[in-house]
Amino acid sequence: MKINQERLWTRLHELSQFGKQEKGGVTRFSFTEEERKAKDLVISYMKEAGMMVQEDAAGNVIGRKKGKNEASPAVLIGSHIDSVPKGGIFDGPLGVIAGIEVVQTMNESDVETEHPVEVIAFTDEEGSRFGFGMIGSRALAGTLQSEHLQQSDQDGMTIAQAMAKAGLNPECIAEAARNPETVKAYVELHIEQGKVLEYAGHPAGIVTGIAGPLWTRWTIKGEAGHAGATPMNQRKDALMAALNVIQYIEEETKKYPNAVATVGQIDVKPGGVNVIPGETTFTLDLRDIDESVRDEVEAKIISYAQAFCEGQGMEIEVDTLQRVAPAPCSDEIRAVMEEACRAMGIDLYSLPSGAGHDGMQFNEFCPIGMIFVRSKNGISHNPNEWSSKEDCGIGTSILYNTVLHLAK
Amino acid sequence: MKINQERLWTRLHELSQFGKQEKGGVTRFSFTEEERKAKDLVISYMKEAGMMVQEDAAGNVIGRKKGKNEASPAVLIGSHIDSVPKGGIFDGPLGVIAGIEVVQTMNESDVETEHPVEVIAFTDEEGSRFGFGMIGSRALAGTLQSEHLQQSDQDGMTIAQAMAKAGLNPECIAEAARNPETVKAYVELHIEQGKVLEYAGHPAGIVTGIAGPLWTRWTIKGEAGHAGATPMNQRKDALMAALNVIQYIEEETKKYPNAVATVGQIDVKPGGVNVIPGETTFTLDLRDIDESVRDEVEAKIISYAQAFCEGQGMEIEVDTLQRVAPAPCSDEIRAVMEEACRAMGIDLYSLPSGAGHDGMQFNEFCPIGMIFVRSKNGISHNPNEWSSKEDCGIGTSILYNTVLHLAK
Repeated sequence: MKINQERLWTRLHELSQFGKQEKGGVTRFSFTEEERKAKDLVISYMKEAGMMVQEDAAGNVIGRKKGKNEASPAVLIGSHIDSVPKGGIFDGPLGVIAGIEVVQTMNESDVETEHPVEVIAFTDEEGSRFGFGMIGSRALAGTLQSEHLQQSDQDGMTIAQAMAKAGLNPECIAEAARNPETVKAYVELHIEQGKVLEYAGHPAGIVTGIAGPLWTRWTIKGEAGHAGATPMNQRKDALMAALNVIQYIEEETKKYPNAVATVGQIDVKPGGVNVIPGETTFTLDLRDIDESVRDEVEAKIISYAQAFCEGQGMEIEVDTLQRVAPAPCSDEIRAVMEEACRAMGIDLYSLPSGAGHDGMQFNEFCPIGMIFVRSKNGISHNPNEWSSKEDCGIGTSILYNTVLHLAK
Repeated sequence: MKINQERLWTRLHELSQFGKQEKGGVTRFSFTEEERKAKDLVISYMKEAGMMVQEDAAGNVIGRKKGKNEASPAVLIGSHIDSVPKGGIFDGPLGVIAGIEVVQTMNESDVETEHPVEVIAFTDEEGSRFGFGMIGSRALAGTLQSEHLQQSDQDGMTIAQAMAKAGLNPECIAEAARNPETVKAYVELHIEQGKVLEYAGHPAGIVTGIAGPLWTRWTIKGEAGHAGATPMNQRKDALMAALNVIQYIEEETKKYPNAVATVGQIDVKPGGVNVIPGETTFTLDLRDIDESVRDEVEAKIISYAQAFCEGQGMEIEVDTLQRVAPAPCSDEIRAVMEEACRAMGIDLYSLPSGAGHDGMQFNEFCPIGMIFVRSKNGISHNPNEWSSKEDCGIGTSILYNTVLHLAK
């Protein structure tokens, strides 16, 4: 292992001091004092690693290692340093610190590359402050619109106002957009936030693609009635109809290896203990890394639900809340990562990413690649989030070999 | 038909003026001015029918037709005249007006009976004001305790305070308790509040028993998780487990002709669109007119749910919110009613009462009998509650013949 696992681990913990909560966990929202201090520490690490550092119009911190051919497109290594409320210390920071470690290791070994290598700490991936995330990566990919900056936090402060307060000019946000011709590839290392690697017994894995969430709200209207005075065969119970539909969703989704479906909210009206539900509303979060699979599952379940409800003499409505396109990872970068694993004697393991990441924003911008590091008990967005020093080191080594190959 | 259907109908509408709402429906809570006016009108009808009238310590209005043998136990005809908020004009008042009509018809035809006949307008059956109902019938059956009178309404006024304000002495509540030896039977006519008679095409029906509600709250604990990062086969989704249990409840309950099961409330935690439910809570309202059947269904579903949840590695808890004993109707009184129907050339039709009624309070006090009148569309507790004049007349005629037979 060429990279310095101890330094990686130390920096990860040093960075976790900003926003540390008394009762455990880290709360580090965008454009706050804690985030500023974290960015300043990241800048100091980047300089220590021998990079030129700048901050762009979105507040992204970008360190650059020159390429032998400075005019050639750069390999980007990115992740974020903001957190959810009372989050862990790995989700985001590990990817940034790992990127810095990759470049520092190269520079310490006098490794020069044809292509420039950049390490980016993105602004606000989580969306915890403004209910709108991936601000920095959207800005870099050129998809952030000025109207997005009108989203506001709990105190009514908009993103634009928070940017101005942090010394940025929201009117210049478009300047953060990168010309795709200057980028060769985007790679990211992140904790898995699930148990797949743990179950499979692998320290790290290669991501096949980032699933896009499709969020829908389903409303089924039956007929409310007296719980005592209405025999079972004379009911139009909107909850029982919803259960039938939800079970179909579950069964259908299980037929596809990468698809996941989750009903996270459910509500019945009128909601009396002794009243048959006349209306049931539930949300569905449906994901797959392949958009055509997700479309197929969606079409099947809607078609089933409509036919079922019609047969029951009930109404059904499905409203789309958000539809994010999945981002498949580049076959070429995956092949490079697989080769890196083989060279290191690590068993290959590939898995989809169900969670969203900054990399999604580069779906139509450049080839993307992702490495996952095993999460203990799959816990994330929680003070108990944990990955071992060794696993972080292995993941960073795969990242090192991958970037070395991509940047040549 | 001996009874005066027109008079019955007119009185029903006259009584509906007290508590009438501008936008439709009747709101008539216990111990209010509207209820007092309604009781006064009922008293005037009772006197017109030739009865002696008194009010007991619970505010029950009791009219009495003397028997040839005044020492013999009386046949009671009862129902209530309070309403739910924006309720209908039939639920309760029809039974009281029908009882008065029965006695008035007897007196007008110079029919004397061996046993005295009493008509009772009970105080507060619905429980809408204090969240505690059947106050008058409990008092008469001797099961009302002084601590019950500490229940309070939305303004913090207790039943005891409201009684005192209405000129009653709450400390004398026990005086309303009737000696069971003075009562031969209790009969009640009520609208069905369901669609069974409408579906079957019968104007009225004989009630086989009053189902007792068993209310339980079920909590299933699984494991919350990331909707994207947790594959379908690595989940402990507390909602999916609850759906399985609820469907079992539905299927099992359907095996028993009179049993009904209703899940009227359901809630999941943490309740995020993209979070797998870690905990699901739902309520179950389970009823049957036969307590042993209800016990059997309860035992089966709890046993199934425990085994199922254990198999899933989940926890389950079932808390009892209330357990009201069902009140089977007297076979003897049902036989009398059946004979009354045959004599009138009415097709016999029997059905259980899923809803609770004052008669339940006399379960261990005296034999009870109930007659249901068809409800249009099964609607009740609603301004659209409706039964036709003819159906009300037929039901009252069955009541007349029943009381005539019981009182001799």
